Amino acid sequence: MSRVVIALGGNALQRQGGASAAAQQAEAAATARQLVPLIKQGHQIVIVHGNGPQVGDILLHEEAFSSDEVPTMPLDSCDAMSQGMIGYWLQQAIDNEMRADGIRLQVVTVVTQVVVNADDPAFSDPSKPVGPFYRDEAEARAAAEKRHFAVKPDANRGWRRVVPSPKPQTIVEKDTIEQLLNNGCLVIAVGGGGVPVIDDGQKLTGVEAVIDKDASAAALADSINAEQLLILTSVDGVRIHFGSPNETELRETSVEELRGYIDQNQFAPGSMLPKVLASIGFVDKARGSRQAVIASLDGAEAAINGQGGTVIR
Amino acid sequence: MSRVVIALGGNALQRQGGASAAAQQAEAAATARQLVPLIKQGHQIVIVHGNGPQVGDILLHEEAFSSDEVPTMPLDSCDAMSQGMIGYWLQQAIDNEMRADGIRLQVVTVVTQVVVNADDPAFSDPSKPVGPFYRDEAEARAAAEKRHFAVKPDANRGWRRVVPSPKPQTIVEKDTIEQLLNNGCLVIAVGGGGVPVIDDGQKLTGVEAVIDKDASAAALADSINAEQLLILTSVDGVRIHFGSPNETELRETSVEELRGYIDQNQFAPGSMLPKVLASIGFVDKARGSRQAVIASLDGAEAAINGQGGTVIR
Repeated sequence: MSRVVIALGGNALQRQGGASAAAQQAEAAATARQLVPLIKQGHQIVIVHGNGPQVGDILLHEEAFSSDEVPTMPLDSCDAMSQGMIGYWLQQAIDNEMRADGIRLQVVTVVTQVVVNADDPAFSDPSKPVGPFYRDEAEARAAAEKRHFAVKPDANRGWRRVVPSPKPQTIVEKDTIEQLLNNGCLVIAVGGGGVPVIDDGQKLTGVEAVIDKDASAAALADSINAEQLLILTSVDGVRIHFGSPNETELRETSVEELRGYIDQNQFAPGSMLPKVLASIGFVDKARGSRQAVIASLDGAEAAINGQGGTVIR
Repeated sequence: MSRVVIALGGNALQRQGGASAAAQQAEAAATARQLVPLIKQGHQIVIVHGNGPQVGDILLHEEAFSSDEVPTMPLDSCDAMSQGMIGYWLQQAIDNEMRADGIRLQVVTVVTQVVVNADDPAFSDPSKPVGPFYRDEAEARAAAEKRHFAVKPDANRGWRRVVPSPKPQTIVEKDTIEQLLNNGCLVIAVGGGGVPVIDDGQKLTGVEAVIDKDASAAALADSINAEQLLILTSVDGVRIHFGSPNETELRETSVEELRGYIDQNQFAPGSMLPKVLASIGFVDKARGSRQAVIASLDGAEAAINGQGGTVIR
């Protein structure tokens, strides 16, 4: 029995790519089925899910129509919407799958805010594309002027709004999450990396930004002193020399070794790199025997038993 | 010190009518300020908020644009979105206002499902209007055919989709809510009356319906054995002979007396009647000394001290 933070990648809800609620809820059920063996082992589990496709769709709907009476909601509010929706899908799916296995456990979704630094360099260099594509640069610049946000060309596919992706500092609801774990609940929290907020010492204020979900999962795992951070994604583990004849999957590795590979640019930014960085961040702060595991969703059970994925110690 | 379920009406977030996130968050701050004196008294507090205007706006956005890639979400998912968004606004506002008063307390939003009966008569008579107005009956009927839902004319303002409003049976997350209260948290739960789900004995499945928020607040208050149900709205209390020269505000009343007034059609359906029915439902099940209070948001502190509003025993 250990305390585990599980970070679920986008494939946990959209493996087949279907974006309807029914399709995503069916995926959530399949994901829940993969998690039941872990739940049965009696671990204290927090699930941190991504929200990229879902908050993207919410934004597209919000941007599709706006008036004084029915205004478009800002990104922090959309983030909170996605936490509610995905949390609902996951808690229901996990509850249903546990029930099929005769397990009774309370599953709870905690709407989570994550403090970021107002002077995070990300705020002066917004880089994460969100929302609809604009027809051309002129349309994008007009939207940027009107709505006070930044726009950039997105990989030759057109112009889009870009938002900052600051580093997570503190999980506002961490004490509640820890308390729920201690009381035997399975907790879904920090969805989509959390709703980013700035703390000016007087109060919290939401900001239009996105926080990397794996980084927030690592920050949560650190702050609640989890033994394990399990990052589940679409690949079996961390590979080096990717796409070359000597491509190798790492089975066990260390923070030092991974730092060397990062210096060699072995990991794709926006893909494996943030997962490796999150793992390093979590393991490196360890006083005891922490480990991070990067594995596929289908290999979750093997991974938690040390029989699959890439283990970082 | 007592356990109190507070049902917040629509005016808690839209008193001035502004629908932007900034306007609603400012209203949430004003509402939080009204709640701080109650929090200071040390009660165990659950806040149940409405979501009518907010889920309405989410639906308008969802309906404004739909494709295979970015499909419109069904009402249960939209409900969960609204719980995330409004919960975020309220938890942040309450946290900020408490901090200004030097109070430290964990505030947590629990995404909540509420079981309804599949054979509730509401399912054969959908009556609650939601979503956009259609141009005319023909457009409404075409949408109804395509999307498999019911439409009706809405008070001469045009045709709209109508959904069932079944009675709440069980609050799925009630044990978690109670545990959080016992641990000293202020809990925001059952937002918008909860996400309606049907339990077929095997699993929970969301349904496109809406549950009356006051009815769900009463069901929660009953199931966690609260001492008090405090329904905060835009009027000072319950009035009889409304609009006539002998209009009177009830200060203290009983279940029996209120039933008599209901038989006289003293209370407006969709307005005061559901609040009176929720209060009756809660108080009538009492074994001990329960009370329900219907009061204005501004009169919350006076009401909880027995100095305002309508007290039902």
